[in-house]
Amino acid sequence: MILPEQLRNKIYKIIFESETRAGKIFDIFLMGFILLSVLLVMLESVDRYMVAYGQTFYVLNIIITIVFGLEYLLRCLSVPKPIKYMTSFYGVIDLVAVLPFLLELLFPQMHFLSVIRILRLLRIFRIFKMVSFLEESNVMLLSLWGSRRKIYIFLFFVLLLTVILGSMMYVIEGGANEKFTSIPTSIYWAIVTLTTVGYGDISPVTPLGKAFASVIMILGYAIIAVPTGIVTAKFINANRSESGRTCKHCFKQGHDSDAVHCKFCGNVL
Amino acid sequence: MILPEQLRNKIYKIIFESETRAGKIFDIFLMGFILLSVLLVMLESVDRYMVAYGQTFYVLNIIITIVFGLEYLLRCLSVPKPIKYMTSFYGVIDLVAVLPFLLELLFPQMHFLSVIRILRLLRIFRIFKMVSFLEESNVMLLSLWGSRRKIYIFLFFVLLLTVILGSMMYVIEGGANEKFTSIPTSIYWAIVTLTTVGYGDISPVTPLGKAFASVIMILGYAIIAVPTGIVTAKFINANRSESGRTCKHCFKQGHDSDAVHCKFCGNVL
Amino acid sequence: MILPEQLRNKIYKIIFESETRAGKIFDIFLMGFILLSVLLVMLESVDRYMVAYGQTFYVLNIIITIVFGLEYLLRCLSVPKPIKYMTSFYGVIDLVAVLPFLLELLFPQMHFLSVIRILRLLRIFRIFKMVSFLEESNVMLLSLWGSRRKIYIFLFFVLLLTVILGSMMYVIEGGANEKFTSIPTSIYWAIVTLTTVGYGDISPVTPLGKAFASVIMILGYAIIAVPTGIVTAKFINANRSESGRTCKHCFKQGHDSDAVHCKFCGNVL
Amino acid sequence: MILPEQLRNKIYKIIFESETRAGKIFDIFLMGFILLSVLLVMLESVDRYMVAYGQTFYVLNIIITIVFGLEYLLRCLSVPKPIKYMTSFYGVIDLVAVLPFLLELLFPQMHFLSVIRILRLLRIFRIFKMVSFLEESNVMLLSLWGSRRKIYIFLFFVLLLTVILGSMMYVIEGGANEKFTSIPTSIYWAIVTLTTVGYGDISPVTPLGKAFASVIMILGYAIIAVPTGIVTAKFINANRSESGRTCKHCFKQGHDSDAVHCKFCGNVL
Repeated sequence: MILPEQLRNKIYKIIFESETRAGKIFDIFLMGFILLSVLLVMLESVDRYMVAYGQTFYVLNIIITIVFGLEYLLRCLSVPKPIKYMTSFYGVIDLVAVLPFLLELLFPQMHFLSVIRILRLLRIFRIFKMVSFLEESNVMLLSLWGSRRKIYIFLFFVLLLTVILGSMMYVIEGGANEKFTSIPTSIYWAIVTLTTVGYGDISPVTPLGKAFASVIMILGYAIIAVPTGIVTAKFINANRSESGRTCKHCFKQGHDSDAVHCKFCGNVL
Repeated sequence: MILPEQLRNKIYKIIFESETRAGKIFDIFLMGFILLSVLLVMLESVDRYMVAYGQTFYVLNIIITIVFGLEYLLRCLSVPKPIKYMTSFYGVIDLVAVLPFLLELLFPQMHFLSVIRILRLLRIFRIFKMVSFLEESNVMLLSLWGSRRKIYIFLFFVLLLTVILGSMMYVIEGGANEKFTSIPTSIYWAIVTLTTVGYGDISPVTPLGKAFASVIMILGYAIIAVPTGIVTAKFINANRSESGRTCKHCFKQGHDSDAVHCKFCGNVL
Repeated sequence: MILPEQLRNKIYKIIFESETRAGKIFDIFLMGFILLSVLLVMLESVDRYMVAYGQTFYVLNIIITIVFGLEYLLRCLSVPKPIKYMTSFYGVIDLVAVLPFLLELLFPQMHFLSVIRILRLLRIFRIFKMVSFLEESNVMLLSLWGSRRKIYIFLFFVLLLTVILGSMMYVIEGGANEKFTSIPTSIYWAIVTLTTVGYGDISPVTPLGKAFASVIMILGYAIIAVPTGIVTAKFINANRSESGRTCKHCFKQGHDSDAVHCKFCGNVL
Repeated sequence: MILPEQLRNKIYKIIFESETRAGKIFDIFLMGFILLSVLLVMLESVDRYMVAYGQTFYVLNIIITIVFGLEYLLRCLSVPKPIKYMTSFYGVIDLVAVLPFLLELLFPQMHFLSVIRILRLLRIFRIFKMVSFLEESNVMLLSLWGSRRKIYIFLFFVLLLTVILGSMMYVIEGGANEKFTSIPTSIYWAIVTLTTVGYGDISPVTPLGKAFASVIMILGYAIIAVPTGIVTAKFINANRSESGRTCKHCFKQGHDSDAVHCKFCGNVL
């Protein structure tokens, strides 16, 4: 099914851009439907609401699926390179928003798939035209990506530490405390403690166990400094290199992004 | 009602300034009344005290409202530009401190409004003449304001993450654990866990749920590095610009300590 | 009671210095007694031990008090300027270590005062001759001291925030949840939540309360970046200014502590 | 038992290096056994699995011990300097992985020793040939090592603080709250609170106790900035020296990006 060139252009302008009035209205409607669909998934999980409004929810689901399905179809038809769109990040997100309920209609036992529709929220970025926001988040993601190896090492270290500490706690506390039933449970407890979450569903009862737990807590309290140090050092470097220009006259670097003249030799940058 | 010029000036000096002896005494009295009124709101909420001293509290409320009302009236009358004062930050705060109890007297069922009177605490800043304090907090607020977009992105990301993780946990744990009653509750649990608060009112019981919860905890433990990195990088930059020198030619600030030439106009600093 | 000059000098060398062999032995003995006295205070609070070894504890307390008392007397007598020592930091600590038990002997109902003896632990610094450690901690304390005003503002802001959020939570949750008995209790809960401690002794039960609690948690998770940013920025500046020397030839700053030549003009610093 | 030179070289290449095909296969097998052995220790601690698969676990343990034992023997025999290997970090780890089960076989009551086998996980680093990862972790460990004295002071300060605050809380809360049974328990509670873990197994009940607990929480919330500041400042310095240039004359590193002359010998960089 191929649309005439002119119509395709018009649909493209409305759906993909938001400069025109129709495009803006379309975006606002779409956002409403996205939030509605997320809300729906949440409310359906509450027994009370499901019992009272189950029928309404079902109808709303059908409507949302039709709207999202139509939108997906129109996007595929109006875009110049459909394959590129369909394999793009947003293309997959858009499909994922339709698929679960279609599958549910065909295979009713797969209702839990509806949860995936939440990913639609990511499209809010596009709606608000948060171009500059995305730019900022790109700088942040690049910084995080640049320090990923240090973070992996840190996570590996934390995991190893919790395995060892959890196992030791099992040896210490296992006999006297019926909550420390096994080493995996003790490791779970060590993670809860080291990350300073501290549910309290499992907590030491013996004096030695409490002393050992105290050591883990203080360790966790100090270790949190490591990821913070990694990320902060990267962010500061990112800030600096963001604005780092080289003077064409004295070849010195380190100029701010708002600098007009070289701060060392005074020539125009 | 217009006061004679001389009287208005005298009242203005007492109420708005604290150079004179009368002004200082007025400030100290006012601070006492502010703290008393906040304390009163708190104590009224304790059933035990309300039963025993309900009458006293009522009388004190009337006295405080009269004092604050009089003060507000005098401020409005003595200030050269009443409209400007009334629409200023402190002007609104001062009105808010009087209004709730007046409304309560008229509509007794709106007692909870009295809580708003707590905002009066903000005026302590003025009383202590914390000019330099305010300056420092301005630098901090400017830094935070400058990184607001990064913080928004971070908060949006955290929210999205907890929605997705909470929904996944509902699928994992929902059947076996009666505490994970619905997706909203699971999202609430995910926020409690990711932020390392960890009440323990809801906690996983299945092995898979505990493993998944461990992942969320370690994630939360690592993610906290992001806002810290954002704010720290801004604070360090703020420190730099604080110590900045002013160009004698274009009067612009924000030069590095090692700068020789003004980065804006190129003249020697 | 004045000691002969020679004896006084000898006692001074043993008690205040640790270069001589006798001085070292004295220091080790003293450290043992300090740790013993702290341990004693702790063990006395455990009912089980108090019942079993109450008599032993009493005797040990008398011995420790005599030892500490003698030591204090000798310090006062051997030091050239007794008044200066007695009003110094360590002088007060030393007195405080003796006084509580003496008061207990006279007024048995003041037993809880013995807890103050824990301050004796501070003397461990002197015993280990942690001169360089103290130096490092001085740099840290100076940094913290330099950012004290920012930290005060932050703490004031946190306090104000918890008062306001706690009061709002009382309005939201107060009716349905019997744990939110009063505004002070709600403020306590808000502090427990905002600081990410999360005991779980009080936790929201209504949907609105849980949503509001989520906001507070995410707020607390983000706000922790502020003190971290303040302190980190100061520490980085302290590191830099620690090593900050000025070149005598080009008057530029920012040289590392290990630099021999100016990094800008190459002359010897 | 001395192996012929050629055979020893071949075994050495397979076991210690992973350039050859046989070496790679050996590494993958070994990794499988290491993970299996860790999993085994964990599963054995779960009563349910132990009852059902106790026999299988026993057989697997024997197999793993034989494999690890053989590997250790081969390593000792093939390495040029066996003593150096046996006293090295990995040599001790390799022995520790075999010893516990051997001891268990001889002395069945020492089963808990098997937990130590978890240390074998450390060898995963070697398997993955994470040379560059190790490099990064070296930079991090050096930074942490460089700030160890500041961290010791911080930990000492936290310990002292919790001892004092815990003791004070015992005095405040001890009478009214049966959970605060002794000073050691109160200190445990103070650590749980200050590190923002907050199990909730012990929590204050008196108004004064809650107020005091609030102070500790806010203190803990602010104090966490100190280790973060220490580590971040070090990491930023480490980043700087990482990007440092080498002087062509004295071959020293650690120059700033804006340096013109070597800070050690004064020559132009």
